Amino acid sequence: MSNTIPYKIYLSEEEIPENYYNVRADMPIKPAPLLNPGTLQPLTAEEMEPIFCKELVQQELNNTDRLIHIPKAIRDFYKMYRPSPLVRAYCLEDRLGTPAHIYYKFEGNNTSGSHKLNSAIAQAYYAKQQGLKGVTTETGAGQWGTALSMACSYFGLDLKVFMVKVSYEQKIYRREVMRTYGASVTPSPSDTTEIGRKILEEFPGTNGSLGCAISEAVEVATKTEGYRYVLGSVLNQVLLHQSIIGQEVKTALDKYGVKPDLIIGCCGGGSNFGGLIAPFMGEKLRGEADYDFLGVEPASCPSFTRGKYVYDFCDTGEVTPLAKMYTLGNGFIPSPNHAGGLRYHGMSSILSELYDEGFMRVRTAEQSEVFEAAEEFARCEGILPAPESSHAIRAAIDEAVKCRETGQAKNIVFGLTGTGYFDMTAYQKFNDGEMTDEIPTDEDIAKGLATVPQFPGNEI
Amino acid sequence: MSNTIPYKIYLSEEEIPENYYNVRADMPIKPAPLLNPGTLQPLTAEEMEPIFCKELVQQELNNTDRLIHIPKAIRDFYKMYRPSPLVRAYCLEDRLGTPAHIYYKFEGNNTSGSHKLNSAIAQAYYAKQQGLKGVTTETGAGQWGTALSMACSYFGLDLKVFMVKVSYEQKIYRREVMRTYGASVTPSPSDTTEIGRKILEEFPGTNGSLGCAISEAVEVATKTEGYRYVLGSVLNQVLLHQSIIGQEVKTALDKYGVKPDLIIGCCGGGSNFGGLIAPFMGEKLRGEADYDFLGVEPASCPSFTRGKYVYDFCDTGEVTPLAKMYTLGNGFIPSPNHAGGLRYHGMSSILSELYDEGFMRVRTAEQSEVFEAAEEFARCEGILPAPESSHAIRAAIDEAVKCRETGQAKNIVFGLTGTGYFDMTAYQKFNDGEMTDEIPTDEDIAKGLATVPQFPGNEI
Repeated sequence: MSNTIPYKIYLSEEEIPENYYNVRADMPIKPAPLLNPGTLQPLTAEEMEPIFCKELVQQELNNTDRLIHIPKAIRDFYKMYRPSPLVRAYCLEDRLGTPAHIYYKFEGNNTSGSHKLNSAIAQAYYAKQQGLKGVTTETGAGQWGTALSMACSYFGLDLKVFMVKVSYEQKIYRREVMRTYGASVTPSPSDTTEIGRKILEEFPGTNGSLGCAISEAVEVATKTEGYRYVLGSVLNQVLLHQSIIGQEVKTALDKYGVKPDLIIGCCGGGSNFGGLIAPFMGEKLRGEADYDFLGVEPASCPSFTRGKYVYDFCDTGEVTPLAKMYTLGNGFIPSPNHAGGLRYHGMSSILSELYDEGFMRVRTAEQSEVFEAAEEFARCEGILPAPESSHAIRAAIDEAVKCRETGQAKNIVFGLTGTGYFDMTAYQKFNDGEMTDEIPTDEDIAKGLATVPQFPGNEI
Repeated sequence: MSNTIPYKIYLSEEEIPENYYNVRADMPIKPAPLLNPGTLQPLTAEEMEPIFCKELVQQELNNTDRLIHIPKAIRDFYKMYRPSPLVRAYCLEDRLGTPAHIYYKFEGNNTSGSHKLNSAIAQAYYAKQQGLKGVTTETGAGQWGTALSMACSYFGLDLKVFMVKVSYEQKIYRREVMRTYGASVTPSPSDTTEIGRKILEEFPGTNGSLGCAISEAVEVATKTEGYRYVLGSVLNQVLLHQSIIGQEVKTALDKYGVKPDLIIGCCGGGSNFGGLIAPFMGEKLRGEADYDFLGVEPASCPSFTRGKYVYDFCDTGEVTPLAKMYTLGNGFIPSPNHAGGLRYHGMSSILSELYDEGFMRVRTAEQSEVFEAAEEFARCEGILPAPESSHAIRAAIDEAVKCRETGQAKNIVFGLTGTGYFDMTAYQKFNDGEMTDEIPTDEDIAKGLATVPQFPGNEI
C-alpha cells in the first residue's frame, strides 16, 4: 500500500470539512468553565458578550454539539489555501533509516505562514455578521496578528492590533505585513489607552509585555462602539475552528487506508494540537479507536509538565476571566526562547482536562535540540519550519529513531504549523553556535506558581 | 464550465512533466550563440566545460530537441513541492468586477520562495552526476542563492555563494537561510579571490556589485578542483528547466478545456517568463494556436523597451562570454528598485529573439503602481507577492479592467513567481508613502548603452 502514497496528499476543495469538530461533545468530563474573577461563578453569555462576538460566545460555551456548521463564506475563504497538504516525509524517513512512516500536515502555505488563519477568518466572519465595525487584538511575535489582518481585510473589517513594543521595534517584517493588510498596529504600552498611560507613567521606557497588550486591546474593544476583542489560542472556540486540521488529516489518511499510531503536535496555548487531534480524540473517547497523542512543549515554558492544574488568569495583567488549566502562574517569566508562540504560562482548558485524565502524553524539548531537528528537516524535506513547529519535528524524529531500534513500522503524524521565514535571527544564533537552553529552576517555577490566585479549592 | 473550476487546480504527481520543453526547437530563427569575447567566434562546448557542467553545456547548445528528458532524481525532488497550484483568482475577479477569468501559477510554495528552485535542483543534479565536489554562484537579493543552497544540500554538494556585500549585511534573513542549508556565504568583494583582493585594493570600503560577485564565483569555480559555476537566469538551460512551469499550466488548463488568451509574466533575465510561455509559444511558432504574450519589466530597468538588440557581456565586470540580447549596456546602473530580481541590464537570448520577431509584447511598470497592485492582490487573494511577481499582477489587473470596459471574458494567465516575505522593508516604504519611481533619463540610457562592446556588426 505504502508505495502508492504520493509525497503530498491533496484533497479536493469539496473535501474541506463542512463542520467544525467539537471534541467537548465526546468528553465525559467537560472542560471547566471560565469564571468571573469577582464572583468566582461561571461566566455567563451575557457577561461575555461585551467582550466577545455573540456567536463566538455560543461556541465557547457549547459542550454538547459534536458538529458545528461552517458557514459558506468561511469555506470559500478556506478554498484559497485549503485543503492543506498532508505530506509523506519520504526524504526524512530515508535519512533516518527508519521503518516508520512519517506524515506531516503542513499549515504554512498561506501568507500568515501558520495555522492561525483557520480561526482568524472564522472570528472575523462572525464579527462581520454581527454588524461590528472592527475588532481588537494583541500580538507578540506577530503570527496571530498577521493572520487576523488578512482575515479582517478580506471581510472589510477594521483591525486594531496592540503589538508588544519590543516586537514592534524588532519584528518589523511582521508589523509591515499587518500594515500591508490595512491593520493599524500600535506599540504597547501606548498612550492611547488608560491602562497604557498608567503603565507608561509607572514604568517609563518599558518594553511592554503580552499581558499589557491584552489589557489595552480589551480596553479599546469594550470602550469603542462596534468593536469586540478576539484571541488566537487557548479558548475553546479557537480549538474548535482548528479542528479543520485534524479532520483533513483523517480524510486524507482514510483515503489510503492508513491508521495513525502516534499523533504529535507542539503546545503553546493548544490551538494547533487541539485542532489536530480533535476527531481522533473523539474516536478514542468514544472507545472506537486508540491513538497515542504526544504534545511537545518547550523546556523553558513547561506548563503541562511542571505546572499545576488550577484556575488562573489568562494574562499577566489579571484583567481576563479565570480559566482552569495547567499553568505556571500568570506571573511566570519564561526565558527568551525563540519559539514565541509557545511562550505562554497557561494552556487550553480542553487539553488540560484531557491530559489530566491521561488521554494524552506530553514531553518537553530544549531549544538547541529543536533547532537541530529543524535544520535536519529543512535540508531533506525542503521546508524551513517555524521554531514552534520544530518542537513536533524533534519528537517525530526521536520516535522514528526508536522505531529503527525496535523495528516497528509505526505511522507517525505530526503537525507542521508554519514556516520560519520571520525567525531567521533565531536560526542565525543557531548557525553561529550561540543558542542556549534556559530551563527554569525549581525556584523559578515556585515563583511563577505563587502568582496563581488563591481561593478555596484553588490552592497550589 | 467556469463554475466547475476550483480555486486551485492541483495536478497529481504523475502529471509532473517527464520532459523539459525546449522552445528553441520550434524557433525558425534560433537564438544567437554565445561568443568568445576574445575571438568573437561562437563558444564551443570545450570552451564552456571548464566553467559549466558538461550536461548543462549540452543543454545550452541544444537548439534542436524539443523534449529533453527529466531524470528521475530531479522528478522525485519536484514531487516535494510540485505540481504547483494554478489558482483561479475568483476573489480578485470579484473585486475588479471584470468578466475576465484570471488564473495565476503560484511558484512560491517552497522554502526558496520562488521558481528559482526548478532550475537549481536540475543544475545541482547534473553537477553531482558529473562527480563534482561542489559549485559556486553569486547572489544579489538572495533568491537564487537560497534555492541553490536547498538543492545542493539535498544532493550533498558543497556550495560557495558570493553575496553582494551590501545584501550580505542587509538581507541577513536570506543569508541565514542559505547557511541553514549548509552553504558557505562570502560577502563580495572578498579577500578570498584575486579579483576580490584587486577590487578591495582599488575601492576600499566598496559595497560590492553583482558583476564583481560573478567574477569571484567564476574565478573560484575555474581554479578549484571539482567545482563548476552555476547561474540562475538568462541562460538557455535555465529557461529550459523553467519550462516545467508552462507545461503544468497547460496540463491544468487543458483538463478544464480552458484556452488562455493572454499570458503575462515579469521579466528580469527571463527565467520565469521564458519557462511560463515555452509550450504555448511552441504552438504559436508551429502555427497551431495563437496566444498573446505580455512581458512586464520595471520602468527603472527597461531592457526590452529601451535597450538595443546587440551582443553584450552578461556581467558588469566583463569576464563572461558575449550574449546577443536586448541590453541597456553592462555598465547601466539601474535605480535601487526593490524588485532586485528584475534589476538586470540584459535579457535571455531566446526571449530577445522572440521579441525582436514580434512573437511577444512587452510593457513597463513603475514601482509604486506595482506595489499598489501587490497590496490589492494580497488583500483579496491572501498571498503576499514578491515585488518581482507584482509586475505581472499589475499588468493582469490592468488587462482585466480593460475587459470590464470592453465586456470581453478573456482568459488571463499570469506567473506568480514568488512570495515577498523577505521584501518587507520595501513594503514598509510603500506603507509609509515613501516609495518613489526612478525612471532613467535618455542620458542615463545613452550612458549605459555606451558600455556595450563595439565591434563590426555590433554598433549601437
